[in-house]
Amino acid sequence: MRVAILAHGKFPADAKTAVGVLRYSDDEVVAVLDRTRAGERVSDHLPEVQDAPIVEGMSAVDDCDALLVGIAPIGGGFDDSWRPDVRTAIERGCDVVAGLHELLADDEAFARLADEHDAALRDVREPPDDLTVASGTAGDVDAHVVLTVGTDCSSGKMTGAFELRNEARRHGLDARVVPTGQTGIMIAGWGIAIDRVVADFAAGATERLVERAGDHDVLFVEGQGALAHPAYSGVTASILHGAQPDSLVLCHVAGQSQVGGYESFHLPDPAAYASLYEAVADPVSGAAVDAGFLNTSSLGPAAAATAVESAQAELGVPVTDPIRDGVGATLGAVLPDSLWAGE
Amino acid sequence: MRVAILAHGKFPADAKTAVGVLRYSDDEVVAVLDRTRAGERVSDHLPEVQDAPIVEGMSAVDDCDALLVGIAPIGGGFDDSWRPDVRTAIERGCDVVAGLHELLADDEAFARLADEHDAALRDVREPPDDLTVASGTAGDVDAHVVLTVGTDCSSGKMTGAFELRNEARRHGLDARVVPTGQTGIMIAGWGIAIDRVVADFAAGATERLVERAGDHDVLFVEGQGALAHPAYSGVTASILHGAQPDSLVLCHVAGQSQVGGYESFHLPDPAAYASLYEAVADPVSGAAVDAGFLNTSSLGPAAAATAVESAQAELGVPVTDPIRDGVGATLGAVLPDSLWAGE
Repeated sequence: MRVAILAHGKFPADAKTAVGVLRYSDDEVVAVLDRTRAGERVSDHLPEVQDAPIVEGMSAVDDCDALLVGIAPIGGGFDDSWRPDVRTAIERGCDVVAGLHELLADDEAFARLADEHDAALRDVREPPDDLTVASGTAGDVDAHVVLTVGTDCSSGKMTGAFELRNEARRHGLDARVVPTGQTGIMIAGWGIAIDRVVADFAAGATERLVERAGDHDVLFVEGQGALAHPAYSGVTASILHGAQPDSLVLCHVAGQSQVGGYESFHLPDPAAYASLYEAVADPVSGAAVDAGFLNTSSLGPAAAATAVESAQAELGVPVTDPIRDGVGATLGAVLPDSLWAGE
Repeated sequence: MRVAILAHGKFPADAKTAVGVLRYSDDEVVAVLDRTRAGERVSDHLPEVQDAPIVEGMSAVDDCDALLVGIAPIGGGFDDSWRPDVRTAIERGCDVVAGLHELLADDEAFARLADEHDAALRDVREPPDDLTVASGTAGDVDAHVVLTVGTDCSSGKMTGAFELRNEARRHGLDARVVPTGQTGIMIAGWGIAIDRVVADFAAGATERLVERAGDHDVLFVEGQGALAHPAYSGVTASILHGAQPDSLVLCHVAGQSQVGGYESFHLPDPAAYASLYEAVADPVSGAAVDAGFLNTSSLGPAAAATAVESAQAELGVPVTDPIRDGVGATLGAVLPDSLWAGE
C-alpha cells in the first residue's frame, strides 16, 4: 500500500505514530504532510528509516491509497486545519485512517464524501462490535508467541515488538507483530485497541488477534500498561492471559522508580516485576521472562552500558536497549531451539 | 422502596437475583411474580429471607415503586411472555429495573410508555457514559475497605460481601456493600457492572464507586472473576487496583480444582491463590488475605466441617462457610482494632 502521513507542525519529535509507520511499516510512505517543513525530506531528520518527501498538503501528493493521521493532539480531537487534506484524500478515493478519540466516521461531511467517492474511513481505536469472552485457546496456535510486557506504560513494548520482528526476519524467520494499541495498528494495518474493549471481552479480543494472525513462525504480541499499574493493570492482565504467550520480554526505562503520572506509587524493581508477571501467567500459560529491554535514552553511552549490564545481572536473562544496541542479543533467548540456530 | 420481583417459572432455584434481593435488599418486597407458583409464599421455599406472596402477575400487585426483573435467561434476552407485566408496571408509574443484555430502554414501545407515565427504565448492566481512568486515590477514603476475591467466578464473592455487611451491622457498625455486578446492583440499588466498562476505565469505575459510597465505617466491595482466570482476570485486576482495599477475603468452592467452563485450566490451590492476590495487590495498596469463605454446599455436615478446618490450616486465617455457618468467625479478622472490640 502507498500511504501519505499527516503530521502538520509535529514532525518528527511529536509525531510518534508517523515515525513508527516510517520505521516499521511494510507500506510505502509516499509523503509526510507537515506544512512547517515542506521541501525537506524525512532523511534530513531520521536517516535510519524509509525516506520520503515532506510536503505542504495532500494536493502535493501524486498518488496514494491511504492518508494516515500520524499525530494526536492532547485529548485526541480532530484539528480543523487538517480538514482540507482529509477532504482532498477522500475526493481522490483514498482511505483515511486515524486513531483519534473523535471518530472520522462521526463527521457527517466526511462520511457523506467517503460514501460518494468509495473511500473508507477507518477509526482504528474503535473495536469490532462482535467480540466475545475468551475461550482460553490462544495457546493452541502453531506459532511461537512472544509478549512484550512492561514495568509501566511507555516503557518500549511496541517498539520492542517491532524490533524483534525485524530481527527475526533478518534471520529468515516468518515473523509478525500482533498490535494491541492504536499506533501499532496504524503501523501494521490491523489489530484491536484492547484498552477500548469492554473489560469482559478484553482477553477474548487478544485471543482473537493471536488466532487470526495467520500461519507464522513467531508472533510478537505488543503488551499494554503494566501489571501493577493503579489504572491499567486490567488491560495488561487481559492481554497476558488472552495471548497465552510462550515467552515474555520485560521492558523498563532505566532509572525509573515511580509509575509515570502516578508518582505516589513505587515500581517493584525489575526482577520482582518479572516474578510477578511469571506468577500471574503461570496458572494459565506458564511463560517466563526470557529477556529484557532497557530504554537508556536518558543516559550517556558509558552509563547506558553499565545500566544494561546491571539489569542483565539482576534479571538473569539477556538485556539490551533495542534502539541503542538492537535486539540481536535477546532474540535467541525468546525463541525455541526449533526456530533458533544461533548467530 | 416497595418492589415486586419478576421470576416467572424460575423461583426460587433459578432466580439468583430474586433470591438475592429477598435475602439482602433493604427494599420491601411486596410480591414475587411467578405464574407457576401463584398462591404460594416465599416462606414456603425460603424460610430465612423476607416473606412475600407469590402472584400470577403485576395485575395482582397492589402498590409498588418498582418492578425488578429477577431472572435472566441464557443469553440475557427479554422474554416476550414478561411483556404484559412490564407494561402494567409502567402504566402505573412503576420504574422497571433489569440487568438483561437486551436493554429495556432500547424497546421503543416500553420507552414511549415510560415517557408517557413518567416511569424510569433502568438497565443496570449499562455503565455510566462519563467514566475515566483511575487516579489511584481510592485508598484515601476514610472507610475501611474489604474486597472479596475468588479462585473462580461463582465462588461466593457477592454473597460473602452482603453477609459481611449484615454481620457488621449486627455489631453496630455502619457498613455498606459496593456492588460491581448486576445482581449486586439490583440488590443494593446502585453500583456499576465493571465487566461492561471499557477496559481502560474499569479501575476508574471501581475507584468512583468506592469514593462515592459515602461516609461509612466499612465498605465491602464485591469482587468479580478471578486473577488467574483465562477470560476474566482483567476485570479482577481492575477491581483489585481500583478499590485499593485494606483487606481481602478469598472465596473458594470446596473441592474445586479446575476453572468452571474452562476445564483444561487447573486452579492454583487456595493458599497459592491467596499469595498471588497479595503479590499483585502489594505494589498498589498492600492488602493481605485476612479470611476465607468456603462454599461447602456439595458436602454433608461432617465433611463440610473438615473442609473448613483444613482450608483454615492451609490459609492460616479464619475460614467459614457463609451460608452454612455465617461469617461471625471471620468478621473480626478483616476489621482493624479501631472497629472491632470482639464478640
